Amino acid sequence: MEKAKIKIPSDIEIAQNSDMKKITEIANELQITDDELEPYGHYKAKLSLNIFNRLKDKKDGKVILVTAINPTPAGEGKSTVTVGLGQALTKLGKKAVIAMREPSLGPTMGVKGGATGGGYSQVLPMEDINLHFTGDIHAITTANNALSALIDNHIQQGNTLNIDPRRIIWKRVLDMNDRALRKVVIGLGGPFQGVPREDGFDITVASEIMAIFCLASDLNDLKHRLSQIVVAFDYNKNPVTVKDLGVEGALTMLLKDAFKPNLVQTIEHTPAIIHGGPFANIAHGCNSVLATKMAAKLGDFVVTEAGFGADLGAEKFLNIKTRSLGIDPEAVVIVATIRALKMHGGVEKEKLTEENVQALQHGVTNLKKHIETIELFGLPYVVAINEFTSDTKAEIDFLQTWCDQHEIPVALTQVWEKGGDGGIQLAEKLLEVMEKKQTSFNHLYPLELSIEEKIRTIAQKVYGAKDIELSSTAKKQIQQFEGEGWAHLPICMAKTQYSLSDDPQKLGRPEGFIILIRELKPSIGAGFIVALTGDVMTMPGLPKKPAALQMDIDENGKAVGLF
Amino acid sequence: MEKAKIKIPSDIEIAQNSDMKKITEIANELQITDDELEPYGHYKAKLSLNIFNRLKDKKDGKVILVTAINPTPAGEGKSTVTVGLGQALTKLGKKAVIAMREPSLGPTMGVKGGATGGGYSQVLPMEDINLHFTGDIHAITTANNALSALIDNHIQQGNTLNIDPRRIIWKRVLDMNDRALRKVVIGLGGPFQGVPREDGFDITVASEIMAIFCLASDLNDLKHRLSQIVVAFDYNKNPVTVKDLGVEGALTMLLKDAFKPNLVQTIEHTPAIIHGGPFANIAHGCNSVLATKMAAKLGDFVVTEAGFGADLGAEKFLNIKTRSLGIDPEAVVIVATIRALKMHGGVEKEKLTEENVQALQHGVTNLKKHIETIELFGLPYVVAINEFTSDTKAEIDFLQTWCDQHEIPVALTQVWEKGGDGGIQLAEKLLEVMEKKQTSFNHLYPLELSIEEKIRTIAQKVYGAKDIELSSTAKKQIQQFEGEGWAHLPICMAKTQYSLSDDPQKLGRPEGFIILIRELKPSIGAGFIVALTGDVMTMPGLPKKPAALQMDIDENGKAVGLF
Repeated sequence: MEKAKIKIPSDIEIAQNSDMKKITEIANELQITDDELEPYGHYKAKLSLNIFNRLKDKKDGKVILVTAINPTPAGEGKSTVTVGLGQALTKLGKKAVIAMREPSLGPTMGVKGGATGGGYSQVLPMEDINLHFTGDIHAITTANNALSALIDNHIQQGNTLNIDPRRIIWKRVLDMNDRALRKVVIGLGGPFQGVPREDGFDITVASEIMAIFCLASDLNDLKHRLSQIVVAFDYNKNPVTVKDLGVEGALTMLLKDAFKPNLVQTIEHTPAIIHGGPFANIAHGCNSVLATKMAAKLGDFVVTEAGFGADLGAEKFLNIKTRSLGIDPEAVVIVATIRALKMHGGVEKEKLTEENVQALQHGVTNLKKHIETIELFGLPYVVAINEFTSDTKAEIDFLQTWCDQHEIPVALTQVWEKGGDGGIQLAEKLLEVMEKKQTSFNHLYPLELSIEEKIRTIAQKVYGAKDIELSSTAKKQIQQFEGEGWAHLPICMAKTQYSLSDDPQKLGRPEGFIILIRELKPSIGAGFIVALTGDVMTMPGLPKKPAALQMDIDENGKAVGLF
Repeated sequence: MEKAKIKIPSDIEIAQNSDMKKITEIANELQITDDELEPYGHYKAKLSLNIFNRLKDKKDGKVILVTAINPTPAGEGKSTVTVGLGQALTKLGKKAVIAMREPSLGPTMGVKGGATGGGYSQVLPMEDINLHFTGDIHAITTANNALSALIDNHIQQGNTLNIDPRRIIWKRVLDMNDRALRKVVIGLGGPFQGVPREDGFDITVASEIMAIFCLASDLNDLKHRLSQIVVAFDYNKNPVTVKDLGVEGALTMLLKDAFKPNLVQTIEHTPAIIHGGPFANIAHGCNSVLATKMAAKLGDFVVTEAGFGADLGAEKFLNIKTRSLGIDPEAVVIVATIRALKMHGGVEKEKLTEENVQALQHGVTNLKKHIETIELFGLPYVVAINEFTSDTKAEIDFLQTWCDQHEIPVALTQVWEKGGDGGIQLAEKLLEVMEKKQTSFNHLYPLELSIEEKIRTIAQKVYGAKDIELSSTAKKQIQQFEGEGWAHLPICMAKTQYSLSDDPQKLGRPEGFIILIRELKPSIGAGFIVALTGDVMTMPGLPKKPAALQMDIDENGKAVGLF
């Protein structure tokens, strides 16, 4: 059961005391040849894209998507359940491969809490994965900022493309929580130091290059998408692209090695492919298409996650990623905890250990909304109740009875404490619903709908909003984007993860609210239009006491204080 | 002979068509155990620091330092000669290991010209090494910018250390040539977006963390040095350090894997250790102490280079790096080309293919000054004339005769065209002078000299300046630094690489000039005081036609247009 339990070692202690198999051994079990594997140390490796060619006739494994209720500071353990479920399927004799995102360093330095699962359901080596891993995110930062430098240099050297420095939409990025870089003025210092202009830094995981990296199907597609990025508008308000600058080749070169998916293992040696890491609040929130495809080629079951609640990551997985993936998911797991549902029911974080069935009764409405959303997509699902020691019998009984009354398939999991064994009930229930129910997966909106109608569909059907309201900026942008021929693209919503609405304070299942669309951003290379709602930030800040203050190395050079 | 020759394939073509040995094989030949090797793909690896412990009683190999005349756009091929000499020593049956710096991506995207040697004297895999390699520079960028974010966050969250935002000397960095970031204003946008202040970005290779990374002797020393970094002054003008912020543990954690030296091979399979990469104009210009020490433990001869001419890299190698290294160099190679010496003699780049003995006669004064500098350090040396096809017999004869007349040991090399075979003459001459001459290496100044006197010593003895002039800022800083107890540190000069003076236009051997010291910067963690001269920039810019425009991948995903 999750971290509340006393005397259980910390995630990093469990991780560092686990026996890993050599990555060559994990690869062997997947029949990956020596030539197809590039080891990075003894426990991580990059996988050659040639594997797709070798296995092109092999049937894809069944994709299971793991999502959750709206997250709270109490924690839901979605990554932990993802890993635990993969391990449980392995224990049941299924050939399961996990596909996950790689963590961003920004939040790691800021707020404790890993992105590699927890307890006995972790991917390893957790400290490597949580720090620089195989350098993919650094490569994306570099490509993003090389493009920025090339844009400003183009202007400085004569600006033959007639770029309007006031209309550059390509921002620089760092894989860092650094609020002081949100709004900056650059190019100061006179004629030899560039052209002064407003600029800003996003966190790398919000970069369009991260999205492209995660949606591209091969190196050619990667290069093509990079070439389509709109970086600015010229003085005639026409879009200027990477192709106009002629640097899509250089950007592709900077990404070519990072583009190979990474193979690691769980604590119980289930293979896991970890690749790409866009956040789900400010980006599309899914691991790379290559990672999921690779897992589907190598396994019979793919357990994959999408970020935050089903209103964010899962919505975008189903409406955006599936259109590039070419594989429909077969089932969904919706993770909830009694603690988090009590918070949605109005209990403060400090009082979560006290039994409160009434609060649970109120909070379960949040879970209910996400279940309805998954039903809208036509997918079978199981609710996974991720148990904590503080959960009381009365609370568990209530939740199970509630599920039974609504005919909601449900399973208790203890994957944090017991690893795969703690996920057997979930795995069995899942196999059962997958067998029983015919899936009829459908996207939530056809691409032909107008930009405004697509946004309204998501807001009403997924968030439960009364309607949307477009700012005057957003209205002008819709007109402009339609004129450019971009109206057919899907929408990538940027919204707080804490609420179904755009107000992080509104927990549970808010009703009657309006979603304000502040601004749109064309991500033509990624192939979607970003719609920014509320106050959502594309560059996070650090808290008063950053996690960095606790971090250190011990006398053997091992990381300590990392979760 | 260098690239002038027709129909010789390009560096990247030669590199990509070479047969590499598996890195495990190279490691085996060096008796490195499986546990001590972390492969990064099949042809690169990180080396465990445990090797030092295992070999602590083994005698260090002899260190040979490769330096050059002041560089010109005509090219000297110092890296090429470094690699070629290592290969030649191997051919002579010596156990040679090369130690070099890792290239920065900034110049790679800007101006064609690799940092991995050329022709048949290259380190491989050249495109990996020239792109992200094993991610070391990215880790340094991350640590540097994490520190920046933590400083600005500290101020935002109440500023208990009383940091004066106008007196923050810690700058952000990117591994990029990006002039528009030289001077910026950050923290704009209101009270939730940080505190507005002036800031600027340097290129990563100029970061004090890069210098620390290259001078630290082990992980504890790394952490100690990081803790000593002065990031700012408070409102009482007292220094604020990383230790005051309490984040030296986090920074060490971010660097712990990068800190392990990288093993690769040359085109002829001579082992090469490539680690750390400070520029020699704006930083101390040498590969890491760990790289050189590791090479000395693994080989009987270490061939290592320091950046740009002997006025920059070699001066700093000998006055700064040797104090941390604990191994004195035994000999120096001074690389020169007839083309570059003709430029120093006044010939334009376009006319270098025309014979011009008179210009050579004028230009050789530049070589003469660097020879005198090396003699001041008490070290034996050989001048290596790196041949080009455009060199005429009359020119070569002149240079050889000139050397003979001055009793200067000299050797012709054709390492670009012939690999190790082209360096045999140099290697033999070098072994001869090492055997004959008793070395009596000495630093050029004792640490007890005042800051001003140390700078004057370098300017007069190494650059041949008449005197130095301190700006009023520099004068005030010297007073302040002496008050802080920093007067005993060595000096790291920041100066143009193109001239012995601080004016890049003054080629040959200028005389009677004054070196203007514009500003000083305390690098207390690195353990030196940086003295900035002339207009030297710590963030380069991109040229009108950046090399990035030529870069691409081919249908097999291989890099093209990279040199």
